[in-house]
Amino acid sequence: MTKILPVIMCGGAGTRVWPESRETLPKQFIALVGDRSTFQTTMATLADPAFEKPIVVSNIDYRFLLADQLREIGAEADIVLEPMRRDSAAAVAVAAGLAARRNPQTVVVVLAADHVVRDRAGLVALCKTAASVAADGYIVTLGVKPDNPATGYGYIRPGERIAGEVMKLDAFVEKPDHPTAEAYVEAGYLWNSGNFIFRADVMQSEIAHFEPAISEAAERAIDGARRDLDFLVLNGEAFARAPKTSIDYAVMEKTTKAAVIPADIGWSDVGNWRAVWELSERDDQGNSVRGNGLIREARNVHVRSDDTLTTVVGVDDVIVVTTQDAVLVLSHEHGDNVKQLVDQLKRENRREAGEHKRIFRPWGYYQSVDSGQRYQVKRIVVKPGARLSLQKHFHRAEHWIVVKGTAEVGRDKETHLVHENESIYLPIGCVHRLGNPGRIDLELIEVQTGSYLGEDDIVRLEDAYNRG
Amino acid sequence: MTKILPVIMCGGAGTRVWPESRETLPKQFIALVGDRSTFQTTMATLADPAFEKPIVVSNIDYRFLLADQLREIGAEADIVLEPMRRDSAAAVAVAAGLAARRNPQTVVVVLAADHVVRDRAGLVALCKTAASVAADGYIVTLGVKPDNPATGYGYIRPGERIAGEVMKLDAFVEKPDHPTAEAYVEAGYLWNSGNFIFRADVMQSEIAHFEPAISEAAERAIDGARRDLDFLVLNGEAFARAPKTSIDYAVMEKTTKAAVIPADIGWSDVGNWRAVWELSERDDQGNSVRGNGLIREARNVHVRSDDTLTTVVGVDDVIVVTTQDAVLVLSHEHGDNVKQLVDQLKRENRREAGEHKRIFRPWGYYQSVDSGQRYQVKRIVVKPGARLSLQKHFHRAEHWIVVKGTAEVGRDKETHLVHENESIYLPIGCVHRLGNPGRIDLELIEVQTGSYLGEDDIVRLEDAYNRG
Repeated sequence: MTKILPVIMCGGAGTRVWPESRETLPKQFIALVGDRSTFQTTMATLADPAFEKPIVVSNIDYRFLLADQLREIGAEADIVLEPMRRDSAAAVAVAAGLAARRNPQTVVVVLAADHVVRDRAGLVALCKTAASVAADGYIVTLGVKPDNPATGYGYIRPGERIAGEVMKLDAFVEKPDHPTAEAYVEAGYLWNSGNFIFRADVMQSEIAHFEPAISEAAERAIDGARRDLDFLVLNGEAFARAPKTSIDYAVMEKTTKAAVIPADIGWSDVGNWRAVWELSERDDQGNSVRGNGLIREARNVHVRSDDTLTTVVGVDDVIVVTTQDAVLVLSHEHGDNVKQLVDQLKRENRREAGEHKRIFRPWGYYQSVDSGQRYQVKRIVVKPGARLSLQKHFHRAEHWIVVKGTAEVGRDKETHLVHENESIYLPIGCVHRLGNPGRIDLELIEVQTGSYLGEDDIVRLEDAYNRG
Repeated sequence: MTKILPVIMCGGAGTRVWPESRETLPKQFIALVGDRSTFQTTMATLADPAFEKPIVVSNIDYRFLLADQLREIGAEADIVLEPMRRDSAAAVAVAAGLAARRNPQTVVVVLAADHVVRDRAGLVALCKTAASVAADGYIVTLGVKPDNPATGYGYIRPGERIAGEVMKLDAFVEKPDHPTAEAYVEAGYLWNSGNFIFRADVMQSEIAHFEPAISEAAERAIDGARRDLDFLVLNGEAFARAPKTSIDYAVMEKTTKAAVIPADIGWSDVGNWRAVWELSERDDQGNSVRGNGLIREARNVHVRSDDTLTTVVGVDDVIVVTTQDAVLVLSHEHGDNVKQLVDQLKRENRREAGEHKRIFRPWGYYQSVDSGQRYQVKRIVVKPGARLSLQKHFHRAEHWIVVKGTAEVGRDKETHLVHENESIYLPIGCVHRLGNPGRIDLELIEVQTGSYLGEDDIVRLEDAYNRG
């Protein structure tokens, strides 16, 4: 049997589990449950010999995050980057296009990077079964067997049997109200999980039929793609022309080739904090603490905090998430309303809406730890072998104190090695560069002083990561 | 008319409004409502010419806090320090003893430092009225007119009228259940506020009669007191012998001299977070935000946060308090159970139970802002004219970067002036001293590196504040 080509859709910017998930570090890259991100566990599931090396389709902003997360688990993938968000139909069109260029008959499985599947062997087995039906020209979707009459999912009405467990897909139905959902569950309807298996040429022709503009944009974006470091970056001008729509709406709700395979594999799309609580280990009061928390006189509470002590007294059915710069207190009942909160924060131009305090860069990360009227203190961590751009500032001087590892500092015409417990001063206007020539992380404390301390006071004279 | 001598009881370590109130910075020193601490507003109330310069009885740990808070509002008081906590009976005995040494007939008003009174003029007027009755030998307590059948207070049953509004105090009754409280309010009972007016010699003889050991301990503690800087420190050996009991239990519930004056002055003992919420300005949903907070789809929520964005979605009747190192989510209903939470944290030896991240010192404050395996970063603020002890460390080196003001740094035999945007390095083992010779606050960032970074790695060779 020929191998299945997995395509992981990894470009989302999920705000529904804010404040942990933000645009700069979205849900799929966070260890929401367990020690690994959902992207990483999805990659691990695809280590089965039934699959080819996966293609990961993601946003250009996440390229270094992706590379880091793959390195962390020792996995490999081809990374395809979208220069802008164009929703799932365009992404699937690109996936089908790339697969077809290998071989039009390639069977592709498209998986979301931000779902949890407890029974990973079950998922692999389902993919194999679905693949044989897909080879015959069907577009097979995973239909999750409901364990409750959820109102948060779209449902699928299965039709006549095709082969084994696989059935024709009769209809997609919208998210129901509670009584309708109960009737659906009773009648054997399934949840629409948004994971598909299809032959590349079949998907291509369906998209070309229903959404020719998307088809066209995806093909041109692949034709004009460029290699950048290890990444394939789609042509932005072409890709931007793809209408923004979902693959469900563009193809699945219209095609006559849709089939469904029932999946009973402990699936969750981790669509809100309540789902995270449900996936967490709970005590007999229904309480669950991740990190530094304490719950008293309450039930069904989920507390998450990496650092700050977070306590709950006497409040039931609540989720409390504490991060370095934001706290969320959310009722189970309003679990789906976090998006609206984040929208409000965006309207108010709050940085916390989309950006974490820790900012990841290709060379490592930095994080503000203190600030006052004319100063700011940052922790800067540089990976072994990495270096920052050659740069200068017009409004701030910087003091660097190395607290771990060794820094190679270029300052105007000189180069200095600065070791642990040593410091160096960078006056306003000097041209400087920071690198880590060593084998372990370099950690330093930067104290900036000056009248203007914005991130935009930077002139990049040269950059190893092709940034502006 | 002779003046009244106010005595402010300011030694409490109130844990009921943790995490803002902690042993190192308790409730009476915090701006729980408005811009001033309750200690400061109490002092301001006593600026009326009816009163002498107040005596403040507090714990020795709070001496510099007290001095700072008085300086901030330009008020003066005689500060008497207890070397250890001995509850209110011993503190009142000391107050009476100190007053009697001026003149046995002195009329004393004892006020709690951590109560809120909206009608401050009303309080002054009540004190004056009560004073004239106290001059005749009564111990007059302020009995607050209930505005609801609260179950959190002890009640007072008033008896026959003495003069004007003042009545004999018939009995103290324990905190009632709700129906009993309703009956009490109906019958004209009053809340016991724990504020008293009495003649010094009368209180002395009552304490001597009912609790001779307290009387004895207080007198010896005053006899053996020593001046330390501007403070009067009670003799510890003597004061330690005072039995720990409240003035209510020791005297008020037993004496035949008790009277009560009804008080309708917007009083609150701010005994829990619910009370703080009630004293705060609320919108028409009953919500109140102090600092950086956002509330959606909820009612009767109180959010407090100085810094971190704190959001509440869909949780009613809750108080959320975010501080630099601890978050509390508390239902109104469980408002009185914070003490038990703090007790649990103490049992678990959590620093956050009693200590704030910002540590106040006589010379200013410091605060850890970041730390790693072998380093710690602190912000240090030194008041104009102040200086730290001459000291050295065995396990850590320090880098100081001045970000505001000017530092005078003694390092072994040298002295350096370090200005804004300059730094100085203090190697392990060097003898050093930090002072602020300037007219504005000195702010610096300290980066410590070393194998052990505990606060106890310090040898103090000389200290302006007589610390060990």
